[in-house]
Amino acid sequence: MIKKILIANRGEIAVRIIRTCKEMGIKTVAIYSEIDKESLHTYMADESICIGPNNIGKSYNNIDNIIYLALKTKCDAIHPGFGFLSENSTFAKKCKENNIIFIGPDYEHIEKMGDKSRARESMIKAGVPVVPGSEGVVKNIDNAIEIAQEIGYPVLIKASSGGGGKGMRIAHTKEELISNFDIAKSEALSAFGNGDMYLEKYIENPRHIEVQVFGDNFGNVIHLGGRDCSMQRRNQKVIEESLTDYLDCETKNKLYNAAVKGAKSVGYIGAGTVEFIVDKDKNFYFIEMNTRIQVEHPVTEMITGIDLIGLQISIASGEKINYTQDDIKFSGHSIECRINAEDAYNNFKPSPGKITYIHTPGGMGVRWDSFVYSGYTIPPIYDSMIGKLIVWGKNRNDAINRMNRALDELTVEGVITNKEFQKSLIESDAFINDTHYTKFIENEYIQTHTT
Amino acid sequence: MIKKILIANRGEIAVRIIRTCKEMGIKTVAIYSEIDKESLHTYMADESICIGPNNIGKSYNNIDNIIYLALKTKCDAIHPGFGFLSENSTFAKKCKENNIIFIGPDYEHIEKMGDKSRARESMIKAGVPVVPGSEGVVKNIDNAIEIAQEIGYPVLIKASSGGGGKGMRIAHTKEELISNFDIAKSEALSAFGNGDMYLEKYIENPRHIEVQVFGDNFGNVIHLGGRDCSMQRRNQKVIEESLTDYLDCETKNKLYNAAVKGAKSVGYIGAGTVEFIVDKDKNFYFIEMNTRIQVEHPVTEMITGIDLIGLQISIASGEKINYTQDDIKFSGHSIECRINAEDAYNNFKPSPGKITYIHTPGGMGVRWDSFVYSGYTIPPIYDSMIGKLIVWGKNRNDAINRMNRALDELTVEGVITNKEFQKSLIESDAFINDTHYTKFIENEYIQTHTT
Repeated sequence: MIKKILIANRGEIAVRIIRTCKEMGIKTVAIYSEIDKESLHTYMADESICIGPNNIGKSYNNIDNIIYLALKTKCDAIHPGFGFLSENSTFAKKCKENNIIFIGPDYEHIEKMGDKSRARESMIKAGVPVVPGSEGVVKNIDNAIEIAQEIGYPVLIKASSGGGGKGMRIAHTKEELISNFDIAKSEALSAFGNGDMYLEKYIENPRHIEVQVFGDNFGNVIHLGGRDCSMQRRNQKVIEESLTDYLDCETKNKLYNAAVKGAKSVGYIGAGTVEFIVDKDKNFYFIEMNTRIQVEHPVTEMITGIDLIGLQISIASGEKINYTQDDIKFSGHSIECRINAEDAYNNFKPSPGKITYIHTPGGMGVRWDSFVYSGYTIPPIYDSMIGKLIVWGKNRNDAINRMNRALDELTVEGVITNKEFQKSLIESDAFINDTHYTKFIENEYIQTHTT
Repeated sequence: MIKKILIANRGEIAVRIIRTCKEMGIKTVAIYSEIDKESLHTYMADESICIGPNNIGKSYNNIDNIIYLALKTKCDAIHPGFGFLSENSTFAKKCKENNIIFIGPDYEHIEKMGDKSRARESMIKAGVPVVPGSEGVVKNIDNAIEIAQEIGYPVLIKASSGGGGKGMRIAHTKEELISNFDIAKSEALSAFGNGDMYLEKYIENPRHIEVQVFGDNFGNVIHLGGRDCSMQRRNQKVIEESLTDYLDCETKNKLYNAAVKGAKSVGYIGAGTVEFIVDKDKNFYFIEMNTRIQVEHPVTEMITGIDLIGLQISIASGEKINYTQDDIKFSGHSIECRINAEDAYNNFKPSPGKITYIHTPGGMGVRWDSFVYSGYTIPPIYDSMIGKLIVWGKNRNDAINRMNRALDELTVEGVITNKEFQKSLIESDAFINDTHYTKFIENEYIQTHTT
C-alpha cells in the first residue's frame, strides 16, 4: 500500500487529494511555487516544499525537480491531479523509471489517448461510435456527395491542414455541398497551399456527455456513470451535472457500455473519462479520452458515494477494484458550479487579488471544495477557479433549488466572482428545461445577459 | 400547501429551517431577541422581526407575541424548531385556535408524550418494552424480593417522592436488596416525609438509541432508522451517529417496529423520536418520545437522503408521506459532532464572545450546519452550540476517519471550542471500538482527559 504521496499540483485539487490521503492515513508532501506559499494545500499537507519560481515550467511542470523532491522526501507515489503534468507521458514514464508510482494510467495509455487520431482508431476498432467522416482525403466532388449521402447531412467540409475555421464550410444539403466544396477547397489552397479536403458529420448544438471509467491491474473495467457537461463557455465547462433525462435509460446504458468497451480494449488502468458529443437524435460519438481525474469528479462522488481519489490510490497501490459493476448504484442528482474569480459581466476578465471575506454555504446536500479562505490572495497567474460548489438532491429539480439556495449563501468579498452569472444560468429556462448545449452560452446567452 | 412560515427559534435550527424553505419556495419570517440581531438566520429569512428583549420568556418563549407576529406577517404556519416552544402544547393549541399550522404533532400528542407516566402507559399498551419495575408502590420487603425476582437484578430502589439521588439504592443481589431496602426507606422518610418505595430494573452502562419516526394525517407511520447517541455528558448528547453494529439486524428491526407501533398506537402525526436505552444484553426499553425535530436529525438525512424538515413541512401541509417503509434505504454511516463554544478542559465553561475568524471544513461527505460567521459575536445567554459538523462515510470506519480530518480543518479564533475534546473522543478506544455508554464521559473519560 502507498504510504506517502507527493502532490504535483496546486489549489483546489491539491487540497482534494490531501483530504483523501488524510482519511486513508497516507502522508502527503505538497509542492508550491513561490507565489503559492499561502495556498491552503501548503498548510494541510504533512510537508510543504517550494518547488521553484512562479513560472509553470520551473515549478508545477518541472519534471526533474518534482521527481527529485519525491525521492528526497521518500514518497512512494505522485498524484498529478489535473492539468499540469497529469497527462504528460514523459513524466509518467520518468516516475516509473525512478520507481515512483504515478497515480494514473501507464504512460503508454497516456500517449495513445493523447494522440487524437490514435485514440479515434482505437475506439473504432473497439466498436465505439466516433463522429462519422471520410476516412482520409476526399478525392473529388462526386466522392464528397457519395460520402455525405452515407454519413448524412449536415456535413462539415474541412481542410486537412486547416485551422482557425479557414477552409471550413457546413453543408446541409447536396446543393450546399456542391456550391461550398470548391469554395472551401480554394480557400484552403490559398491559405495553406494545400487543397486536400475531408468530410465529417456536422453535429449541430451537441451535448457534451462523458463517462467515468476505472480500470485495474487485473483487467477489470467498470464505469461510475456519466456526467453532462454541456454548459460550457469557449470549451471550458461551467456547470457539470449527473446525467439527466436528456438520454433515456437504454441510451445511457449503451453509452456506458461503449465507454467500458473502449477502455477495456486498450487495457486501461486507473481513472479515465471517455468524452462524447451527443446529437439531438441522441446519437453519441466519441471525441476523446482524458487519462486523469477531472475537475467535475465530485458529481460522480455525490451520486455513487465512492471517493474517486481514494479509488485511484488503491488501484495505483495494486489493489483490485473492490466493486463489481452491479455494486455501483446511482442515487439522486448532483450539480457542480465552478466558482471563478472573474467578472462575467466584463468579458469574463479575471479578478485576482485578496479575498477579504468569504462565507461558504452549508447544510444538507451541499459540498464546497476549495483552497481559499478569508485573507487569501488569489495569484493572477493561474486558473481563475477558486472553488467548486457541488450539491446533491433527490432529483434534478431539488438539486437545482438547492444550488440556487447555496449560491445565495456564498459570500465573497474583495474579488469579483461569477456567482451571479452561475445563478442566472441555473435559473435559465434552457438549463431548467434541459435544452442547453455546448455553445449555448456563446450563441444565445451572452448577448442578452452580460453586457 | 404552506406558503409562508414564521420560525419561532434562533441559531442553527432557524438557519436549517430557512434553507429547506428556500429550496421549497416557501417564504420565511425570522424572529430574534435584541441580542440576536446579527445571527445568520436574521439575514437569511425573507423578513426578520425583533420579537422582544433577550429574556427568553419575553422573546422566543413569548407565545402571544409570536402568534401576533405570525398573523401580522400573514404566515400560514409556524416551525418551532427544537427547544423553546417546540414541545409546548399550549403554544401548539393556540396556533390551532388562530388558524396557524403548527409544524409538529397535534397538541394532544405533545401533552400525552410530555407526561412521562402517560407516555409509559401508552407504550406498555402498545406492547413496547419499558424499563421493568413495580407497578406502583412496593408493599414491603417480601413484595420487593418477589418483584426483584421477576424483573431480575440489579434493581434500583427508588423513593416515590425522591429526587437528587436521595432514597435511591442499587441492589445487585437479594442480600443487597434486603440490606438496602430499609436504609433507602428511612432515608426517604426523613428526606421527604414519605417512605413509599418502588422498584425499577437498573440498567447498567446503557446505550442511548433512538428511532426517527414520521406519521401523517392518513394513519401512515414510517421509521427512518435509528441514531446512537450514547456519547453524552450530563445527559447532553455530544456525538450522535447512525446505528452501529452494536445491535444486530434482527434487534434493529425489533427496535424500529416497536417505535412504529408506539407511534401508530397514539395516531402520531409529524416528526417524532422514540428514545430507548439498551442494556449490555441488547434489550431495549422505551424511555421517552420527543415530539419535535432533534438536533441530531442530519445523521438520518445523511444516510437516507431525505430532508426531514421538508418532510415535516409537507406533512403539516396535509400531504401524505410519499415513501413507503420499503422506499427508505440506508446508505453508509453518518456521525455528528456538536461544536460548542466552551472550554472542555476548564469544566466546560462556556466561551461566548466574538468569533474573529472561522474556516469551516469541506470536501466529500462533510456537512456544516451553523449560524455563525467570521465577525459574529456569540451571546452569553443561550446554548453554547455554534455548529454541527456532520460526516458521511461508506462505513463507520471511513466516517470516523473523515470526521477526524474535518475536525482538523475547522478553525475558530476568538472563542474556545470543544473541537479538541471532540477529536479526542472520536479517537478514543471506547468510541472506535463502540464500547462507550451514556455515562462514559463522566465515569471514565473526564478524569483522565480534562484536568
